[in-house]
Amino acid sequence: MPDADLIAEKTEQAADALAEQDVDCWLTFCRETTEIHEPCLPFLLGFDVVWPTAIVVSKEDRSAVVVGRHDAPNARELPHEVYPYDESLEEALLGLLDEIDPDEIAVNFSRDDNTADGLTHGMYLRLRDLLSGTDYDESLTSAEDVISAVRGIKSPTERARVRQAVETTEELLGEMRDRWDPDWTEADVSDWLHDRMDDRGLGSAWSWDYCPTVHAGGDREVGHTLPGELTLPPGEVLHIDFGVKQDGYSADMQRLFYRPSDENPEPPEGLREAFADVRSAIEAGRERIAPGVAGHEVDSAARDELTDRGWPEYEHAFGHQVGRNAHDGGTLLGPQWDRYGSAPEGEIRAGEIYTVELGADTEWGYLGLEEMLLVTDEGTEWLTDPQESLSVLARPE
Amino acid sequence: MPDADLIAEKTEQAADALAEQDVDCWLTFCRETTEIHEPCLPFLLGFDVVWPTAIVVSKEDRSAVVVGRHDAPNARELPHEVYPYDESLEEALLGLLDEIDPDEIAVNFSRDDNTADGLTHGMYLRLRDLLSGTDYDESLTSAEDVISAVRGIKSPTERARVRQAVETTEELLGEMRDRWDPDWTEADVSDWLHDRMDDRGLGSAWSWDYCPTVHAGGDREVGHTLPGELTLPPGEVLHIDFGVKQDGYSADMQRLFYRPSDENPEPPEGLREAFADVRSAIEAGRERIAPGVAGHEVDSAARDELTDRGWPEYEHAFGHQVGRNAHDGGTLLGPQWDRYGSAPEGEIRAGEIYTVELGADTEWGYLGLEEMLLVTDEGTEWLTDPQESLSVLARPE
Repeated sequence: MPDADLIAEKTEQAADALAEQDVDCWLTFCRETTEIHEPCLPFLLGFDVVWPTAIVVSKEDRSAVVVGRHDAPNARELPHEVYPYDESLEEALLGLLDEIDPDEIAVNFSRDDNTADGLTHGMYLRLRDLLSGTDYDESLTSAEDVISAVRGIKSPTERARVRQAVETTEELLGEMRDRWDPDWTEADVSDWLHDRMDDRGLGSAWSWDYCPTVHAGGDREVGHTLPGELTLPPGEVLHIDFGVKQDGYSADMQRLFYRPSDENPEPPEGLREAFADVRSAIEAGRERIAPGVAGHEVDSAARDELTDRGWPEYEHAFGHQVGRNAHDGGTLLGPQWDRYGSAPEGEIRAGEIYTVELGADTEWGYLGLEEMLLVTDEGTEWLTDPQESLSVLARPE
Repeated sequence: MPDADLIAEKTEQAADALAEQDVDCWLTFCRETTEIHEPCLPFLLGFDVVWPTAIVVSKEDRSAVVVGRHDAPNARELPHEVYPYDESLEEALLGLLDEIDPDEIAVNFSRDDNTADGLTHGMYLRLRDLLSGTDYDESLTSAEDVISAVRGIKSPTERARVRQAVETTEELLGEMRDRWDPDWTEADVSDWLHDRMDDRGLGSAWSWDYCPTVHAGGDREVGHTLPGELTLPPGEVLHIDFGVKQDGYSADMQRLFYRPSDENPEPPEGLREAFADVRSAIEAGRERIAPGVAGHEVDSAARDELTDRGWPEYEHAFGHQVGRNAHDGGTLLGPQWDRYGSAPEGEIRAGEIYTVELGADTEWGYLGLEEMLLVTDEGTEWLTDPQESLSVLARPE
């Protein structure tokens, strides 16, 4: 059941990150994880646990799990030492720490990055109690930099899975375009995609009901609202924000479709110009992306290009990482706003996967585009096939 | 979408619990809740949030939510004041606290109760930062007693939903017994139940792959292992631990089925005696259950009865609460073991729903029983139809 190859790749990556950051060990501490998810668990263990569980990775490339006896059989095929316990994990965990003898123990909390914030405050207090009076009483530190490297830099297996999720998402959007009917409401578009996902056993990259998000034409308020009963008027634009989750990995893209009218069988000039402005702002941001650049610098480049072209600022970040989740934590290509904390200060790394997204509200509808790319040593590589022009829907009969 | 009636019931319960415990206000603080669940969110808000969100209930029966503007439309139909924000929730949250002017602010952390431990350590630190320099700098306290009362005592809607989940689970187990085939492996039993659940759109009360847990006969190691390729030998016992999740609420029960053999078309005397011992230990525990009794006292009564009858102790708690989850937190009917923390010290309350469960390992198979009951002012009321004798499977042709 557990995804042993992937877990081996990520565990090795973790040991490398610890060595590079000179942190002696990383401790993931969790319980009842079907109720409160520990975001690192899927790539460290691959199954949920009931009793308190500790997963330790050291910079010397040692990895171990202290786990309730009932949960232990599942851990046997993993690349970790396994220490099952019956009544308390204390003895086994302290024994392990004594062997590693760490100065710093990085644990999963972060003010700004929810994917590095799986340690609950109650479990933090339990850990403090457990370490009290030992040599490690003052050793706890945030694992956010370790997790950002481990989660952010995608392993070969992870890259292949994200590519697959992107390909499937593009395929479904292409089929939707070919089958689209002018009588379809936003909800019909969503239902059609959901049926295809059910047929193929695919999950959604974010909450099922809101994935896809569908906006039909210029009368639609944009936001986290459910697809509704609007149909797409002739001469206006259908906007879809969508991604499947396949084999545990996600895609996240936005696409635009134009419905021809008698007057304008092709997109009118004003619409084409607005589309070009959006496209150009996406490009301006993308061009700034390279290893070592801070997230907010990329956001500024895109934001300035859009406002220079006379459009209002978008009210979100230009891009976020994608992996297991559509919002995969770590460095954010976002503005330095309070609600984003320090995430836009992070530096981009080769091997990370980002979205680039923004839009403009027009009389024809919301013109939002979102692409995905892999950061390489030299710059970027598209994972999506970027939308270069409005896709024209079949003319209604 | 949000379950407004249920949320109104639970919010009112929360205000009552605050008044009774003399705590001025309860603050639930969370973000990106599809990634890290906040266990109280389903009955306080009913939908997931992306940006940092604060839900405040005061003992003066005031309730409010400070929520990112994109998430706000979903909150409009709830019995809460709604304060949408764009960049930071700080101003609205502090304004609200100033109006309530609390001495204590209870927040969701608990060493022992995971259902009261939804506040991550990073979010705890953000909250400390936010309150630093205000009158509430030292006001944070654990909400575990508030949550234990709110989550533990089931509202009328919740009781009806648990009863429905129990009824459905009993129905499916009955159908399974009638359709059972001697060629069926443990995995076949599980697949059959899963197909019925799929047909009816039902979830599982715990991880799908392990719900049901199925043990065929005396050669089977008991634990959190997947249903395997064993068939049930004649003259032995099929043990099933199972519960559906329906309308957001769970059942959790264990049932025993005897396969007749030529020699013993009915369960032999030794097996019947062992079953009676298990049954009697369940009863001994149940008889101790009443409002005000500590959880561990109930566990002792059952544990002593079983060991007095010559069986080894069971290695788990005698009972746990059931509600949204199969393991619903709060007071545990368990022994005072380290891994259970202070949960067995809690006092039982009228309106709580518990399982009572234990078993004995025998040559015929694992004889585990698990029933569910509601605590009343006077004592208890069965929610399951208790298993009084071994259910005999149809004789193989």
